[in-house]
Amino acid sequence: MTFDLKKYINDRRRLVEEFIGRAAPKADAMPPTLHSSMRYSLEAGGKRVRPILAIAAAEAVRGGDAAGIPGLVAVASSLEFIHTYSLIHDDLPAMDNDDFRRGKPTNHKVYGEAAAILAGDALLTFAFELLSSPAYTSGMDAARRIKIIHELAYASGSMGMVGGQAVDMESEGKDIDSVTLEYIHTRKTGALIRASVRMGAIAAGANDEQLKAVTRYGEEAGLSFQIADDILDITGTKEEIGKDAGSDVEKGKKTYPAMFGLEQSKSRAMELQASAVEALSVFGGRRRAAQGDCAVYSIKEELICPEGRGTHGIS
Amino acid sequence: MTFDLKKYINDRRRLVEEFIGRAAPKADAMPPTLHSSMRYSLEAGGKRVRPILAIAAAEAVRGGDAAGIPGLVAVASSLEFIHTYSLIHDDLPAMDNDDFRRGKPTNHKVYGEAAAILAGDALLTFAFELLSSPAYTSGMDAARRIKIIHELAYASGSMGMVGGQAVDMESEGKDIDSVTLEYIHTRKTGALIRASVRMGAIAAGANDEQLKAVTRYGEEAGLSFQIADDILDITGTKEEIGKDAGSDVEKGKKTYPAMFGLEQSKSRAMELQASAVEALSVFGGRRRAAQGDCAVYSIKEELICPEGRGTHGIS
Repeated sequence: MTFDLKKYINDRRRLVEEFIGRAAPKADAMPPTLHSSMRYSLEAGGKRVRPILAIAAAEAVRGGDAAGIPGLVAVASSLEFIHTYSLIHDDLPAMDNDDFRRGKPTNHKVYGEAAAILAGDALLTFAFELLSSPAYTSGMDAARRIKIIHELAYASGSMGMVGGQAVDMESEGKDIDSVTLEYIHTRKTGALIRASVRMGAIAAGANDEQLKAVTRYGEEAGLSFQIADDILDITGTKEEIGKDAGSDVEKGKKTYPAMFGLEQSKSRAMELQASAVEALSVFGGRRRAAQGDCAVYSIKEELICPEGRGTHGIS
Repeated sequence: MTFDLKKYINDRRRLVEEFIGRAAPKADAMPPTLHSSMRYSLEAGGKRVRPILAIAAAEAVRGGDAAGIPGLVAVASSLEFIHTYSLIHDDLPAMDNDDFRRGKPTNHKVYGEAAAILAGDALLTFAFELLSSPAYTSGMDAARRIKIIHELAYASGSMGMVGGQAVDMESEGKDIDSVTLEYIHTRKTGALIRASVRMGAIAAGANDEQLKAVTRYGEEAGLSFQIADDILDITGTKEEIGKDAGSDVEKGKKTYPAMFGLEQSKSRAMELQASAVEALSVFGGRRRAAQGDCAVYSIKEELICPEGRGTHGIS
């Protein structure tokens, strides 16, 4: 039996996008401009990496089948609302001042700055509305829901994603050391990746050992992804990265390649990735789990090695 | 026995401020600039109206004593984190572009625009961290916590506070009708006032009748408060309102007095206030409840009639 990675990812992406389309406020609901701007960014063609990771982690814990976990897709999708808000705010003139995102004009270029700030605020808030919603997540155990809400809040807040972005902004054009660079990477992107797999695992009822395993996976794969992103900023084409290459360097942002060189950055990314996958060996004894595990790291591999490793054989 | 309103408010305000001081991230915790800017606005001298209303509503439901409700002060304080974030974002150059708030320079004037956007994002997120925190709210029933989280998320989001601000921004300098004006008022300020009393009541285990009563109170007193705020913008001194008088008018904002005249606005505010208090009669049969009820509406009265009605006799 071979594992069709593309199909695996596409199936879950469709599930998440169908859910977001249904759960997000309709574009014509009052106030329509706000809701249109929220949907503009939600539907701007994200890869849905975080939601797919959450589902894959739940599948790893359950041994391959997560369809019966109540509220799992809502939990997974809440991550995309947070991620989308963070992109809108990061792109603002006062922040990274980006005109394009995934090849499309950024939210504030289309709707104006005030509307973009508010769309971000509303998307952030909506993530928590979803996780506490009687309509979408009430089938879950209440204590588990609280844990999931706390995971998301902590990971996105001042000690997590927002903290990473704050230090990144402060560091622009300054000489920073490798400790600060790693702080930025592990918070700005890493915290939410880590939360993704943890939230999926908690929704699936993971035990301590399993939660620890996906946590290590999330931390290492997340940092690996961020280094890969830095590499792509230098070596990628505009099509691959959805914006002009070299934009980090141009803004005086410190990146892994700028600090350690391209080759060393590549091998660090691959090392972290291998170690992340190693962490998942805890699920290895169970045959049906293999599919989930494989998927968890494959999503990252697809991003890190765009040439891909093709399909993964599961015996 | 007379009821000392000032003392009542001050006692609860102290409780809330002590809690916020303890629970909010320390100013020297990494990243220090972000945390300092969060604390700058948290400690800028707010009246803590929303948290006090939440506690007062819980007291009304419990018949005067709310000290034993686990997590109540955390629930009440979460409202202040949301309120504070909304002020920071509203003051931004892309929004209302205000340099002063409560007589002090606004967050972005002190820390810069990027930091102010991030401080707002982090404060918003922290409200939900608090409500799901094992340290501060774990004594509460989990299902009740979920309900409270949903109240706050819905009231602050695109159908509530953010929606009201979005329509307010779009309406600047335009001719709007009274329906739109009421939409703005009931969402931008009203939604969070309504949520304040509801969250407190839910934390106290309110039954349907009690929840309905505080909801009507919250809606009517909230709108009354907003009309009073519009009136103060015209008649108040800089000391009373913490910024230049007439700033709404100057920005082309539509207000109640601008639409209906000063006298009619005043009587509408007083009517709403009377009706709001009337809604609380459901608690009237219980003697100990009277103190809570009295406090609930008195806080508003202090704001609406700055000259005050003095103390309220409770027989």
